[in-house]
Amino acid sequence: MEAYYIIGLAGSILVTIAYVPQTLKTVLTKHTKDLSLAWLLILAVGLFMYSAYGIWISSIPVIFSSGFGFILVFILLIYKLRYG
Amino acid sequence: MEAYYIIGLAGSILVTIAYVPQTLKTVLTKHTKDLSLAWLLILAVGLFMYSAYGIWISSIPVIFSSGFGFILVFILLIYKLRYG
Repeated sequence: MEAYYIIGLAGSILVTIAYVPQTLKTVLTKHTKDLSLAWLLILAVGLFMYSAYGIWISSIPVIFSSGFGFILVFILLIYKLRYG
Repeated sequence: MEAYYIIGLAGSILVTIAYVPQTLKTVLTKHTKDLSLAWLLILAVGLFMYSAYGIWISSIPVIFSSGFGFILVFILLIYKLRYG
């Protein structure tokens, strides 16, 4: 496995797990005032489309990262809509 | 161009531009209390590594999306560190 491949893989894993602390913070505090609704809406639609693409091309890394990201962003979106 | 490819491409573009409204909101309001520092730190490192990977494999879409995302997240990170 080449070094650049490991860097790319580690980067994509970090980008995905980065949403865990944000989701935890939002769920625990229920404070969503500083979060942009447009950001969450566009991100949710984008990750949903990206997940569909991953299923289509049968790419487990794409399905896993975008599917996991979608679930977290969807939770954030629900909190944003619920708590403003 | 196949339909699934267009969906994947559109999804990745949406995921990238999603950060524009969040960055605008943060820059305009200077309110960062509800943003998770861990989220921004992990995301910045992940996008930086992903950008390096894109340069390595000479992929313009990867360089553009992760590089653009990195710049926006870096701005958010600076505001978070500055305004808490």
